[in-house]
Amino acid sequence: MDVTLKVLAARVGGTVAGDPEVRLTGLAGLESAGPGDLCFLRPGTPVERLAGTRAAAVVVAESVAAEGVNLLRVRDPERVFNEIARQLGPKPPPVPVGVHPTAVVDGAAHVDPTAAVGPGTVIEAGAEIGPRTQIGALCYVGHRVRVGADCRFFPRVVVREDTWIGDRAVLEAGVVVGSDGFGWEAGPDGPRRIPQVGRVVLEDDVELGANTTVDRARLDETRIGRGTKLDNLVQVGHNVRIGAHNLYAAQVGIAGTVRIGDGVEMGGQVGISGHLEIGDGVQIGAQSGVMRSVEPGQRLFGSPAVAANLRKRLVLLEPELPGLFRRVKVLEQKVARLEEPAND
Amino acid sequence: MDVTLKVLAARVGGTVAGDPEVRLTGLAGLESAGPGDLCFLRPGTPVERLAGTRAAAVVVAESVAAEGVNLLRVRDPERVFNEIARQLGPKPPPVPVGVHPTAVVDGAAHVDPTAAVGPGTVIEAGAEIGPRTQIGALCYVGHRVRVGADCRFFPRVVVREDTWIGDRAVLEAGVVVGSDGFGWEAGPDGPRRIPQVGRVVLEDDVELGANTTVDRARLDETRIGRGTKLDNLVQVGHNVRIGAHNLYAAQVGIAGTVRIGDGVEMGGQVGISGHLEIGDGVQIGAQSGVMRSVEPGQRLFGSPAVAANLRKRLVLLEPELPGLFRRVKVLEQKVARLEEPAND
Amino acid sequence: MDVTLKVLAARVGGTVAGDPEVRLTGLAGLESAGPGDLCFLRPGTPVERLAGTRAAAVVVAESVAAEGVNLLRVRDPERVFNEIARQLGPKPPPVPVGVHPTAVVDGAAHVDPTAAVGPGTVIEAGAEIGPRTQIGALCYVGHRVRVGADCRFFPRVVVREDTWIGDRAVLEAGVVVGSDGFGWEAGPDGPRRIPQVGRVVLEDDVELGANTTVDRARLDETRIGRGTKLDNLVQVGHNVRIGAHNLYAAQVGIAGTVRIGDGVEMGGQVGISGHLEIGDGVQIGAQSGVMRSVEPGQRLFGSPAVAANLRKRLVLLEPELPGLFRRVKVLEQKVARLEEPAND
Repeated sequence: MDVTLKVLAARVGGTVAGDPEVRLTGLAGLESAGPGDLCFLRPGTPVERLAGTRAAAVVVAESVAAEGVNLLRVRDPERVFNEIARQLGPKPPPVPVGVHPTAVVDGAAHVDPTAAVGPGTVIEAGAEIGPRTQIGALCYVGHRVRVGADCRFFPRVVVREDTWIGDRAVLEAGVVVGSDGFGWEAGPDGPRRIPQVGRVVLEDDVELGANTTVDRARLDETRIGRGTKLDNLVQVGHNVRIGAHNLYAAQVGIAGTVRIGDGVEMGGQVGISGHLEIGDGVQIGAQSGVMRSVEPGQRLFGSPAVAANLRKRLVLLEPELPGLFRRVKVLEQKVARLEEPAND
Repeated sequence: MDVTLKVLAARVGGTVAGDPEVRLTGLAGLESAGPGDLCFLRPGTPVERLAGTRAAAVVVAESVAAEGVNLLRVRDPERVFNEIARQLGPKPPPVPVGVHPTAVVDGAAHVDPTAAVGPGTVIEAGAEIGPRTQIGALCYVGHRVRVGADCRFFPRVVVREDTWIGDRAVLEAGVVVGSDGFGWEAGPDGPRRIPQVGRVVLEDDVELGANTTVDRARLDETRIGRGTKLDNLVQVGHNVRIGAHNLYAAQVGIAGTVRIGDGVEMGGQVGISGHLEIGDGVQIGAQSGVMRSVEPGQRLFGSPAVAANLRKRLVLLEPELPGLFRRVKVLEQKVARLEEPAND
Repeated sequence: MDVTLKVLAARVGGTVAGDPEVRLTGLAGLESAGPGDLCFLRPGTPVERLAGTRAAAVVVAESVAAEGVNLLRVRDPERVFNEIARQLGPKPPPVPVGVHPTAVVDGAAHVDPTAAVGPGTVIEAGAEIGPRTQIGALCYVGHRVRVGADCRFFPRVVVREDTWIGDRAVLEAGVVVGSDGFGWEAGPDGPRRIPQVGRVVLEDDVELGANTTVDRARLDETRIGRGTKLDNLVQVGHNVRIGAHNLYAAQVGIAGTVRIGDGVEMGGQVGISGHLEIGDGVQIGAQSGVMRSVEPGQRLFGSPAVAANLRKRLVLLEPELPGLFRRVKVLEQKVARLEEPAND
């Protein structure tokens, strides 16, 4: 980016205090900002934090005043800063449009002429890559996979056969979609795999973090709903159905055949046991282990997960437990003494 | 698949109720089945579930009767359905036999002429790939790795040097076998790696899920026994020895030098501390943390893992804890009052 | 390796008991050692363990005496054995110096002439690869990434744009560095990504285990300090700052904006909540969940993490809880009976 504060203010609808002609060439946090950088001050943060900054300008709330630093006053500084970053900030370098000469695209695959396929990437027969979609280097797109428009696969993504992916999906490096589900039946020589002949469907605007894995269904489909975002190293088991606009932090694991509503949020390392139903808007704290179905709107925490309020009380009581054992022992002694006189 | 119900019945030894000439072209779940699909009804499921189905036929228990839907009656519907899926259902597209022209196979590697090596795959000197084994796209097979017959590597598997893999192994996309174990000793400038000069041995019929990692031994070997199946994102530390026919769900972590018997099962996100022994047939519930060796046949649950029965009792008592604190307080007050008269 | 015990003793400064001319050609554990192998006996292990060994020689403490086995007596057997392994043991086969003809190196990248780039690897414009650094097969090194001297990337590593990596870094297979951080703001159509425009910095001697992921910062940098070693499948969130010489076991997850001091150690599957500060020298037991900032030198354990001593007491008390409930019930009955006479 390279823009004056004045131009920026006009663009985002804010007012300037200080030098409107200062040039902004980068984005940074307050502490580390150097000349040319634009920062923001979260409402509620003491204005004194602006004192030492070398930033060229700071996006602040409308009420903020400060000497010796150029301000861009707006109603919602963080949101405006994010919008500036979105519009003017650095972006992941695009994959050049067209098929890289080292890519191996089957003659029976269809790659839209506006799509981009990076070096070393393999696209199998029957796959379809939509307009403006960018498939990075060293990816594997299996047979009959359909990828919509404006998607981005970072390097080294694997999407196995028959997966359907909507528009604007983002798959980070190392993602695996469509691996076989973990289903076994007893056989004469140990466990035999139950055939996993379903598919994975990722609806529009789904984003999957680095090295996250999504298993194909045993039958029918594993489905991740519109706008749902999963962080890194998340596991989604076979036949799971996740609704719209879920957010899961890293290392969450969803066992098979779980049904999850819309707007559900999970902290890191949460585990959900198989065959449960999780209602809309449920929020689950980090490291929780959910072993029962959950009504809509509940907030859960702990392993096993219980109502977050109860868990918080239990967590506070926990250090008191050794004392409780001592108190009961004292009571037992006292009661024994109280019982004695009756025998006198 | 494309087969009539009559032919199928003859093949699996069942009896037809309804139209024996109906053509079966796919496999599906009851709810989502469309014309041409074969489904199954688990014994115990109400027969009313058959009412709305559009399935062409349903595999049912011998006692099931229903109007308006074609039935294939067998003794064990799910097992028969799985067998049909195994024999006639869709399969992962095979890697074409031979070495893809973009693969990089060292002149001192040996690839069986019936084996298949996908595009972009790298096979180093001294590696041996057995008959009918399929190595997918973009895999890396290191120096002196031995892979047996009829194995399948999905795309982007890494097997580092000196690993031995038996017959019929399945390695899902993103698997890493033979990474250095996590062993350090204090050095003048911080931790120094303890050399990890052992290997990994995967016995026959081992299957590893997507992005699962298995570390090479410090000395000797890390070994996974015959027929053991690990789900996605599982970690197996150095010098671990796992017996035959184990089943571990996703995100399990086994620390170094653990010895595990045969037929052990673990739920998702279980952790096993280093240097423990886990006996044959042990079953460990999801998210458990095992910090002591375990006798054969035990069922454990929780973090720290205790006998599953005890853990279930503890879990039920947990919500009663705040009440217990109140009850003890009440007792203390009552006992204080009871003690008073003595002072009167 | 192929060296006589005499030569080895001179090299490491030990004394020989037995045949100084025995040839040592391998390294092994005591139980599995075959002819030609060198082993070590940990001080404290009973000398009887030497009895059955077929090892050619064993590195032992200076006080150890044993018949029928060749000994190399030194002050610190394990450390000396490790040093021998480091100097003479097998090493991961090097990537041949130079750029493999199948690698795709942008004309605007700089690869030091002493560096090695494996088959299929992609190096983007502006990247710099330092002297003697080995980039294995099928890696992706993004735009403007700087990699120092003497680094080793195992196959299939992804380092996204603008990452800085110091000297002697080791990245195991499947590592992803520089993936977008997990930050979202509410938008009209569901969550919108907060732009992640910072970088990742790995200081000298950092080592990352297989399939570990490190997210780029939202702004500024995610930084892993000098000599820090992370095991497999670890997640490091955006804007995390980890100090020097940390050691984390597998499947640890560090949420965003956590600050961690020097010399911190974590067991497997530990989770650290976002925005916390963890002081120097903190030790955190496996599966712990840390939800508060931690003073230097603390030892924590459990989920939620508390002082390890307290947690150990709580763990011991846990099985006594059902009994405590019974004891309180008995007390309540006794106290009720004691209260009765007053009503008489």
